[in-house]
Amino acid sequence: MVFLQLNCAHMSKPLILVTNDDGIAAPGIKALVSVAQTLGDVIVVAPDSPQSGMGHAITIHDPIRLYAVEVFPGIEAYECSGTPVDCVKLAKHVVLKGRKVDLCVSGINHGSNAAINIIYSGTLSAAMEASLEGIPSIGFSLLDYSYTANFEECKPFVRKLMAYVLEHGLDEGSLLNVNIPKLAEHEIKGLRVCRQADARWVEEFMEAIDPRGQKYYWLTGKFENDDTDDDTDVWALENGYISVVPSMHDLTNYKAIPGLKGVENL
Amino acid sequence: MVFLQLNCAHMSKPLILVTNDDGIAAPGIKALVSVAQTLGDVIVVAPDSPQSGMGHAITIHDPIRLYAVEVFPGIEAYECSGTPVDCVKLAKHVVLKGRKVDLCVSGINHGSNAAINIIYSGTLSAAMEASLEGIPSIGFSLLDYSYTANFEECKPFVRKLMAYVLEHGLDEGSLLNVNIPKLAEHEIKGLRVCRQADARWVEEFMEAIDPRGQKYYWLTGKFENDDTDDDTDVWALENGYISVVPSMHDLTNYKAIPGLKGVENL
Repeated sequence: MVFLQLNCAHMSKPLILVTNDDGIAAPGIKALVSVAQTLGDVIVVAPDSPQSGMGHAITIHDPIRLYAVEVFPGIEAYECSGTPVDCVKLAKHVVLKGRKVDLCVSGINHGSNAAINIIYSGTLSAAMEASLEGIPSIGFSLLDYSYTANFEECKPFVRKLMAYVLEHGLDEGSLLNVNIPKLAEHEIKGLRVCRQADARWVEEFMEAIDPRGQKYYWLTGKFENDDTDDDTDVWALENGYISVVPSMHDLTNYKAIPGLKGVENL
Repeated sequence: MVFLQLNCAHMSKPLILVTNDDGIAAPGIKALVSVAQTLGDVIVVAPDSPQSGMGHAITIHDPIRLYAVEVFPGIEAYECSGTPVDCVKLAKHVVLKGRKVDLCVSGINHGSNAAINIIYSGTLSAAMEASLEGIPSIGFSLLDYSYTANFEECKPFVRKLMAYVLEHGLDEGSLLNVNIPKLAEHEIKGLRVCRQADARWVEEFMEAIDPRGQKYYWLTGKFENDDTDDDTDVWALENGYISVVPSMHDLTNYKAIPGLKGVENL
């Protein structure tokens, strides 16, 4: 395992790919790079602009640009004009060209990706894309949407989780969706392994008129949770824990298969 | 159930929301509208431009436009500047304003959304968004990527499935991912309820130089399937069946939870 590599001076350090969806200049990815470089060699491939809410979007109708940039001192880094998922694909096929990545980390996202947010999140979709490529991956999010969020308090936990996955790996095709409460380090009660809460957005659209007299809409809304069991990510976060949800790309609703067999007689 | 409504002249017809990701002018959505209007009242809210590969992206950093258009004779229709998921959100909150939708159908997509394609697909993400809002929903895709694909052969099956879901509903939070082989009606062997195959894309990037001398990349690749069991959507399609995969938005990898309990001691 990679743990052994870390303890054998004659072997190479693990290679860690870092990406995000808030863009390569966001404070969250800077925090993540600073933790990652204490554990291995780091390569960054991240969007050149904010890509929040891009989900698992990929760029197929347009060309994509990729430029080497100096953003993190001493770290090989590239900015990409595409989506977070595009970044992972370009990292694998263009930047790394066959070099084996030991871990992909995405984030630290400015804001929650708990519960249903995972399907809208570029941060988690990038981590899922890495898991599809067989790379153990973790998406990190801090429950603070502000650009100037304080990422220092959560760094020790982020480091522990990255070291854990480097040592133990993850199940094939699995990724971790890690959300961190906005608390001081000593206030965080620990880590909880949980399921995705069945909570969702109750939305509205702001309706307004632009300078040319044309109507437009802008998405707004609030998050609501009726899933009050104590085994969910939302419960963990509301109770001072960091939530760790093992996630995957198989969307089959296996329980629904038997009840649909009548479809085969149509 | 809605079946009863269909047979009671004094009750209203079911309301069917139609969307897609190839854009409101695509032949696939025209075919779907023509089937839907034989089963109920139809409202269309679809993207104003092709949105393939947009996954579950939503527009949060920009305003969205929504305009009533006359595209389908006698049908209330709107084009939207956002993603397929935006279309469903705008349909619910702006166009329908509380009117109950009995069924949402998305497509018919020009090309496969079997196996892992579901997570990249705007067509299926729109259907999933509807399912999140408690609307039974189906995403339809024909295994023919051409703009001039022939949608006539599959129409009888599309109609049967829509009528089935209108009559029986679906499990809460479930949607159907329906893929249709490119075959004549009489060659289609029937419908198979199956799971999502663990097949994936083996990708590359075309690298080229633009007119200004700058390098760009363009995603390309081929689909490969090592998951050869006979209970998958890819098997069904390769053997002449229409695949019907019940899908959902809970991405939790429940099997992985016990093996991760060590994380709670970090």
